[in-house]
Amino acid sequence: MGSAGTRIHIPAGEGRASRVPAGARFRITDLRGRQCCDLFAFNGQDVTEYASAEHTRVYSGNLFPRVGQPFVTQQRRPILRFEEDHTPGKHDMLVAACNPSRYALLGVKGWHASCEENLRTCLRAMGHRVEIPQPINLFTNIPVGPDGVLDWQPAVTAAGDYVVFRAEMDAIVCASSCPQDIVAINDHHVTDLELEM
Amino acid sequence: MGSAGTRIHIPAGEGRASRVPAGARFRITDLRGRQCCDLFAFNGQDVTEYASAEHTRVYSGNLFPRVGQPFVTQQRRPILRFEEDHTPGKHDMLVAACNPSRYALLGVKGWHASCEENLRTCLRAMGHRVEIPQPINLFTNIPVGPDGVLDWQPAVTAAGDYVVFRAEMDAIVCASSCPQDIVAINDHHVTDLELEM
Repeated sequence: MGSAGTRIHIPAGEGRASRVPAGARFRITDLRGRQCCDLFAFNGQDVTEYASAEHTRVYSGNLFPRVGQPFVTQQRRPILRFEEDHTPGKHDMLVAACNPSRYALLGVKGWHASCEENLRTCLRAMGHRVEIPQPINLFTNIPVGPDGVLDWQPAVTAAGDYVVFRAEMDAIVCASSCPQDIVAINDHHVTDLELEM
Repeated sequence: MGSAGTRIHIPAGEGRASRVPAGARFRITDLRGRQCCDLFAFNGQDVTEYASAEHTRVYSGNLFPRVGQPFVTQQRRPILRFEEDHTPGKHDMLVAACNPSRYALLGVKGWHASCEENLRTCLRAMGHRVEIPQPINLFTNIPVGPDGVLDWQPAVTAAGDYVVFRAEMDAIVCASSCPQDIVAINDHHVTDLELEM
């Protein structure tokens, strides 16, 4: 990536955030394969503006992230551009981040890690309290069937598969190794990711 | 509807909001036909909790609203239930409310009414400043093609077609007659709606 060459290890089920200046590129790698990554991006100058899936779907005219497209904010300004996809190309832009209520409905008693909590924790450490946007769910294989039925399938990424984004404005990005181990999206085995810039 | 029988007229391109107690039903009617309605619902006790499309898609396992299903909040608690559908059944739950940036990108110079502004105006009049959730886009015909391509088609509702919802918690609902007259969703003719409870 950039000459700085910063590598941030994201332990299984945790999140990490970083500032990314406008024009810089960053890479997210699925180190072991079949691991979903919830990606969030906020305007680095004003975290009330963030990558919005519902505005991006209108902007791109498509349900799914595609190489070359920007992700836009609620003000329809590009914040990230999807530059390279070295995966089988299955990514989701339809479902909410997992949160405590998701796990409670799935029958979990007590605390369970979640992408929403990971985001809050990372941004709080940077001094920000944020709304929870719908994430860009990298490596996440939720096909849409006839009549709009969603299916939670295991990710199809192999170890080392990665994606590259470019920041279109000064941004704070947060990547969460999705701790979902009840439904099949991580093949019931939550593993590490890497954020590199 | 209820014995109160309140009818709220929604002029073309404007929005109206009302409190709806838990258990009460309300009806939204497309008076002239082919008019989209952006519907928003907030917890009446805490407007930071609201009907969330991305959480509802997970809850229902479907892209589109269907009779019988609840719409849930970010805490995955039912806030509205879709009780009756006296329309051809085309409703959207994928796209953001129109806002000033939407019209600017469509080439409009200067001010244009928008569902986002209608929501802000209605809720401000009730003393609330709110986040802008992704709406439930009633009567809105945005089919999803192969590969996830979205198409902005004219609404197919006839004059007098209506839907009925039940509030599952004390709620504030806001319905906006979508002022979109550039793309075809309102057949280039923005008309009135009615909210009745």
